[in-house]
Amino acid sequence: MRTRVGIVGAGPAGLLLSHLLHRNGIDSVVLETRSRSYIEKRVRAGVLEAPTVELLREAGVADRLDRESLTHHGILLRFDGVEHRIDFADLVGKAVTVYGQQELVKDLVATRVRDGGDLRFEVRDVSLHDLTTDSPWIGYTDRHGRPQVLDCEVIAGCDGFHGVTRQAAPTLTALEHRYPFAWLGILARTPPTRAEVVYAAHDRGFALASMRTPEISRLYLQVSTEDTPADWPAERIWTELSARLGEEIRPGEILETINTDLRAFVAEPMRHGRLFLAGDAAHIVPPTGAKGLNLAIADVALLADAFTALLAENDERPAESYSDTALRRVWRAQRFSSLMTDMLHRSPGEDRFQRYLQLSQLHHTVSSTAAATSLAEDYVGPPFARTIAVPS
Amino acid sequence: MRTRVGIVGAGPAGLLLSHLLHRNGIDSVVLETRSRSYIEKRVRAGVLEAPTVELLREAGVADRLDRESLTHHGILLRFDGVEHRIDFADLVGKAVTVYGQQELVKDLVATRVRDGGDLRFEVRDVSLHDLTTDSPWIGYTDRHGRPQVLDCEVIAGCDGFHGVTRQAAPTLTALEHRYPFAWLGILARTPPTRAEVVYAAHDRGFALASMRTPEISRLYLQVSTEDTPADWPAERIWTELSARLGEEIRPGEILETINTDLRAFVAEPMRHGRLFLAGDAAHIVPPTGAKGLNLAIADVALLADAFTALLAENDERPAESYSDTALRRVWRAQRFSSLMTDMLHRSPGEDRFQRYLQLSQLHHTVSSTAAATSLAEDYVGPPFARTIAVPS
Repeated sequence: MRTRVGIVGAGPAGLLLSHLLHRNGIDSVVLETRSRSYIEKRVRAGVLEAPTVELLREAGVADRLDRESLTHHGILLRFDGVEHRIDFADLVGKAVTVYGQQELVKDLVATRVRDGGDLRFEVRDVSLHDLTTDSPWIGYTDRHGRPQVLDCEVIAGCDGFHGVTRQAAPTLTALEHRYPFAWLGILARTPPTRAEVVYAAHDRGFALASMRTPEISRLYLQVSTEDTPADWPAERIWTELSARLGEEIRPGEILETINTDLRAFVAEPMRHGRLFLAGDAAHIVPPTGAKGLNLAIADVALLADAFTALLAENDERPAESYSDTALRRVWRAQRFSSLMTDMLHRSPGEDRFQRYLQLSQLHHTVSSTAAATSLAEDYVGPPFARTIAVPS
Repeated sequence: MRTRVGIVGAGPAGLLLSHLLHRNGIDSVVLETRSRSYIEKRVRAGVLEAPTVELLREAGVADRLDRESLTHHGILLRFDGVEHRIDFADLVGKAVTVYGQQELVKDLVATRVRDGGDLRFEVRDVSLHDLTTDSPWIGYTDRHGRPQVLDCEVIAGCDGFHGVTRQAAPTLTALEHRYPFAWLGILARTPPTRAEVVYAAHDRGFALASMRTPEISRLYLQVSTEDTPADWPAERIWTELSARLGEEIRPGEILETINTDLRAFVAEPMRHGRLFLAGDAAHIVPPTGAKGLNLAIADVALLADAFTALLAENDERPAESYSDTALRRVWRAQRFSSLMTDMLHRSPGEDRFQRYLQLSQLHHTVSSTAAATSLAEDYVGPPFARTIAVPS
């Protein structure tokens, strides 16, 4: 079996890449270890940057998104008992779009299926070979248990942080930072009290409240990295949310809880021979800046151009500059995510000086137009780089 | 002996306070342990914020400053082998003024002497008493060895970080942060290569170059906290400056070197009964943001108003709000100084992730107009609070 681009992973990155390549007349095959129904239900991020939405519209996959998503023109920052609004529309004339990642995945799968795309679910034993030649290939076992070989010209590693593709690139350097706290994510049947996302930097720790639907809230609490679900019975969750968010959060049915470590990670370069990594396979940001999904989309926007230039025009330059260009956005997002994380969380062992500095940073962010504009620029997202990169 | 305001310390804060009070018709006495000639030669800071210069002009002590100072419309940030300019004039329409602290001290002493001000140099054994009554007093030994008592209505502690006044306020809380690196300051007869201050964030550590005169440079190198002068022979100084600043710095006669620990410190509240602290007596910022002298001036601008309201109009409100109002500017300056310090220095034990984040912060600062504007706003200085504070 042969294709031009072998794509490992049917998350938003792999699916969108396959779609963008198809629009450029380039065949690809997408391999995914999970089932279609699993990936269509997997709840993940939900905040799309302005350039992400523009790209999805250009790519013709934003019809349902445009009908069903929510537009947020700002965020709310709460600290010292007062709520402040960062008005994106006013500061930078842009907004973000709230649309669950699983909804985007559903749209992309449906589009690929409509267009006759080759998506292979429930594969296993994926292995990459001959990456430093012009004839790389992917070995895997298909859903029927039969071993398969997929010959490619290039391979895209879009299989997430725990995927196999990064492991096949022995020349990568990994940079990592772990935060000394974690998040408890709560999906619950309780009406959101605000239409926009609330980021609360309370003395007791960080909390986040966002609207999933008018009846369902997505809520997060900063917790200890050692906490287990047993440490967070429902009553404690509601008490703590109310205290940190500064208003009564009405207890409702808890539909799901999830513990998330906060981690920053970058593998560089994002290329090894004919393997190109994109999204979480190459980098992880702490979720405070809502950048993970958007970085994945920015990566594949570059990668679609680079593969098209390489395979349709034999122009290697965009592929050569892919990693450098993508990493500039990645580090910008790391910087922003680190700033947001540091500004909003309490750290074990922090001293009062550090706490006062943190409050000073929060006050400054809401009182200096320049500081608020800088935050807004990063939150709504800088424009995507789409062409050959000019070194900065 | 009796006065209305006892001022301990004849640095810029104490001298300017005495002058501002005199203009409001309020008598004061300034006590200083050093000699007049010592304080007039003591080399310290030299970058004056725009509001500092405005206040000195309003106070009629800026004639020589206006003739002899240098106006800097920007700073130069150097990293990754490239020099970038932050253009204050363009970004915020303001500038900073370079004028040695000892020159300002000379001007203030001359002005107080001209106006018949009571400055007592070379005193010792200063002690404060009855601070929580309406009749505080200062005990000291005069230059002739005679014990003296100075009865006051209020006392201003302007005697710096190592002074005695803060120690007389047992109710203060001290917050402190020490940086794991130090500065070696060099005054040398070598022509500055740039008219504006150069901040260099080099892989080998931070360096700063500034012009004292067209023939004399003030230079700084980040060094280890354990380094002694023996670790820095002249040849190493010149080699290291040239490497970090990215151009040949011509060796010249070294007129002075000084080792400086980098420290952040805040005592709060800045008041204990009838004792009010100002400047370094209450707070220290790391020198990277050039804020120390300016905070001292901002403090005494508030304090002159507060003492005048209290003593001339029996209005206690500005004195009551002094500490809160002053501390807002102090924490803003701490935040800015911390940002500048973190962005420009290498830390022992930092990992590559942190280094990349730092470079990302530097790139962001010079490429986002909002981020550059935020830096420029802080560098040129926010307007002074002069009236009764409105709680934020």
